[in-house]
Amino acid sequence: MAPSRDDPTTSEMRHDWLTDRWVIVAPQRAARPVEFVHQPPRIISKHACPFCQGHEHETPAAVACYVDQGHAPGKSWHVRVVPNKFPAVSSPEAVLAVDSNALAFKQLALNSENSAWKESGYEVCSASAAMCSELYQRRFLSGGHEVIIEGPEHLQSLSQLDLGTASLVFKSYRDRLAYWLTEQALAYAVVFKNVGEEAGASLVHSHSQLIATDLVPTDILRAAQRMDQFFEQKGECLFCRTVREEIEQGLRIVEQTPDFVAYCPFASRLPALVTITSGQHCARFEALPDRQLEQLAELVHRTIRRLEQIFSDVAYNYVVHTAPASHQGSAAFHWRMDLFPRISTKAGFEWGSECFINPLTPENSAEQLRSVRL
Amino acid sequence: MAPSRDDPTTSEMRHDWLTDRWVIVAPQRAARPVEFVHQPPRIISKHACPFCQGHEHETPAAVACYVDQGHAPGKSWHVRVVPNKFPAVSSPEAVLAVDSNALAFKQLALNSENSAWKESGYEVCSASAAMCSELYQRRFLSGGHEVIIEGPEHLQSLSQLDLGTASLVFKSYRDRLAYWLTEQALAYAVVFKNVGEEAGASLVHSHSQLIATDLVPTDILRAAQRMDQFFEQKGECLFCRTVREEIEQGLRIVEQTPDFVAYCPFASRLPALVTITSGQHCARFEALPDRQLEQLAELVHRTIRRLEQIFSDVAYNYVVHTAPASHQGSAAFHWRMDLFPRISTKAGFEWGSECFINPLTPENSAEQLRSVRL
Repeated sequence: MAPSRDDPTTSEMRHDWLTDRWVIVAPQRAARPVEFVHQPPRIISKHACPFCQGHEHETPAAVACYVDQGHAPGKSWHVRVVPNKFPAVSSPEAVLAVDSNALAFKQLALNSENSAWKESGYEVCSASAAMCSELYQRRFLSGGHEVIIEGPEHLQSLSQLDLGTASLVFKSYRDRLAYWLTEQALAYAVVFKNVGEEAGASLVHSHSQLIATDLVPTDILRAAQRMDQFFEQKGECLFCRTVREEIEQGLRIVEQTPDFVAYCPFASRLPALVTITSGQHCARFEALPDRQLEQLAELVHRTIRRLEQIFSDVAYNYVVHTAPASHQGSAAFHWRMDLFPRISTKAGFEWGSECFINPLTPENSAEQLRSVRL
Repeated sequence: MAPSRDDPTTSEMRHDWLTDRWVIVAPQRAARPVEFVHQPPRIISKHACPFCQGHEHETPAAVACYVDQGHAPGKSWHVRVVPNKFPAVSSPEAVLAVDSNALAFKQLALNSENSAWKESGYEVCSASAAMCSELYQRRFLSGGHEVIIEGPEHLQSLSQLDLGTASLVFKSYRDRLAYWLTEQALAYAVVFKNVGEEAGASLVHSHSQLIATDLVPTDILRAAQRMDQFFEQKGECLFCRTVREEIEQGLRIVEQTPDFVAYCPFASRLPALVTITSGQHCARFEALPDRQLEQLAELVHRTIRRLEQIFSDVAYNYVVHTAPASHQGSAAFHWRMDLFPRISTKAGFEWGSECFINPLTPENSAEQLRSVRL
C-alpha cells in the first residue's frame, strides 16, 4: 500500500525548500476530541474609532492620502497612511538624538564595571567585557512604523471594501515600500495585515501596517540566501520554478489571473495558507504597475472571500514579502504574499521545535478554496 | 540621555545568541488601545474525561505507570503514560510496513510521468524529475507520540498537583526520553505541555506530551550547532556561561535552588518567558538523578504558581529541550526548559519575519515573578 494523503496510520513530512524546514502533514490529528470551545472576542468601543472619517485629528498627520475619484466622490479620502502612534521601531531622528550618548555608554561598559551603566538600565559586565557584550548585545532599531487606514467607514475585513478602495490600498503599499526602501534607503520593509483578535489586531477598523528597519531579520536573510542558493544551483528563480510546477501539477492552485497565481504551498506550515505571487519574475512588490496592482487587489479580495466562506468570520493575516535592499532587482528573489486564516494554535511542540503540524493537506485546502462560489 | 528600558521614544533590539535572532523589546507598545476583549474558552464535557481514574479503558494501554506510595495510598496510579490516540508521527512498525511500496512509487516518479503515482496521491513530475523531486520532497516520520497523564483527578494545571505527583511527572519525562533516545535510538525527542485552549490544548485534564522522531527539526539542529560554535570559540558551554552571567548580574533571576536556576532570558521573544536549567553542565535531562528531579518539580510548580498569580488562569506552555542523539553527552549542549504564559498573539509581523516584539522587558518580568508571595 502506498501512503496516501489521508492515511490515518502514517504521518507524512514535507520539505519546504525556502526555509529548509520539514512540516508534518497530519490530517488524522483533526479527528481528536476537543473539550475547549473557542469564544470569539467581544468588541468594546469606549471611544469612537480613531480610524473613522471625522476622527482624523486622533491620529498623527497623514503621510499619504488616496482618493478614488471615480467611485465615491463625496469622500475626502479612501486610504490614509499615518505614522503608528505606538511604534515598534524608532524614527531615524530619535535614534540620531540618543546615539552619541549611547555610544559613550557602550564604551564605558566595554572598558570597565561602571555603575553609571547599570543605572542607565544597562547591565554591568562584571566578567570579561568582550564576552559579556557578545552575549548581551543591544542596539537601537531605526526605521518606520505606519498604519494604512483602509476606507473612511468602519469595516473590518478587506473583503468588505469596494474594489476601488482595495486597489488604492495595494497602491499605497507600493508607494510606502518604495519610500522606505528607496528614498529612505532602509535595509528591510514589510507590509502586513492583522484582522481579528486571534490574528493580533488591536483595533477593528480595516487597516494594514508597514514596518521598515535598518536591520534585516535573520529569517528573512536566510530565506533570501536560500533563493540565491537555488538560483546558483539551478540557474532559475525558486518561485518562478515553483509557480511553473504548481501550474503544471494543478493540485494546489486556488486561482490564476493573467499576471498572478494563488496556491497552497506544498509544505505549508499553516492550514489553508495561500501564497500569491507574480507569474513572471519580479523581485520587488514596489515594481508592480498600477493595472497589475488593481488585478492583484481583486485577486486578494476574492481569496479572502473564499477563506471567509469556508471559515466564517475568521481572523486572518497576510504578509507582503518584497526584496530587502540587498536583493532589490535580484534574479533570485521573487516577491510574494502569504495569506492565512487563524484556525490553529501554535502549541508547545511548535514553539519548541519550529516544526509545524498541519492538519489540512494543501491539496485539500486548495480544492476547498477553488470550489467556493463567489 | 542614555536609552532606558522604558523610554517610550526609542526601541531596543536584543540579540539572542542561541538562535542568532534579534528581538524587539518595546514596552511602549503595551500602552496602545485595544478594542478586543479576549473571551476565555468555554469547556464542554459531553463525555467523561478519558484521562480520569475509572476511564483507563478509553485510552490505549499504558506503557508506564507511576504510583506515589507515600502520599495517597488508595490510588492505583498517579502518573500514566499512554500512546497518543491521534499521533502526529507514525510508529516505526507502521512505517516499516509501507516503506517498500513507497520506495517503489518513488522510483516510478523519478523514472517517468506515471499516472499510478498521481492516483496514489503523489504528484506527477512532468518536468525534470530530479528538480521536481527536490522541490517536492516527502518522507515518512517515524517515532513515538505519548501522553503523560498527570494525576487520577480532573485538575488542569501542574500547579494544582501535589508535589509527590509532580515529582513523578518529571521522573516519567526522564524515563520516556531515555526510552526513545537510548533504547529506541531515535534522533530527537521533546517533552512539552499545553495548558488551556490558547496554549493549544484540546483536553482539560493535566497532561504533557512526548514526541520522538527519526529526524532532528531544522531549528533544533541549528541551536545545537550554535552551542557547538560557542563552545569552539570560547571553550565553554553557552548555557553554563549564561547561567553564571545571570547569577552575577542578578537582574533577570526568578529563583535559584541548589541545582537549578530559573531566569527570564535577556533576549526573550515572548513576554514573561522563564528558562529553567541546571546550574552545572548537563547535556541530557534524562541524566538527572531522582533527588534533582524532585527539586526541579518543586521549582517548576512554584514558577507556574508565580505566573498564575500575576496572570490569573493563564494558559501556558513549557518545552523540555534535551540533547538530540547527535549531542548526547556533549560538552556544548546544555538541557533546558522554557516555560511561557500565552499572553501575546503572534501577529502578521512576527509570522512574516520571525522577529518578535516583546512588550515586557525580561528585567521587569523577572522582578514581578520574584516578588510574588507563594
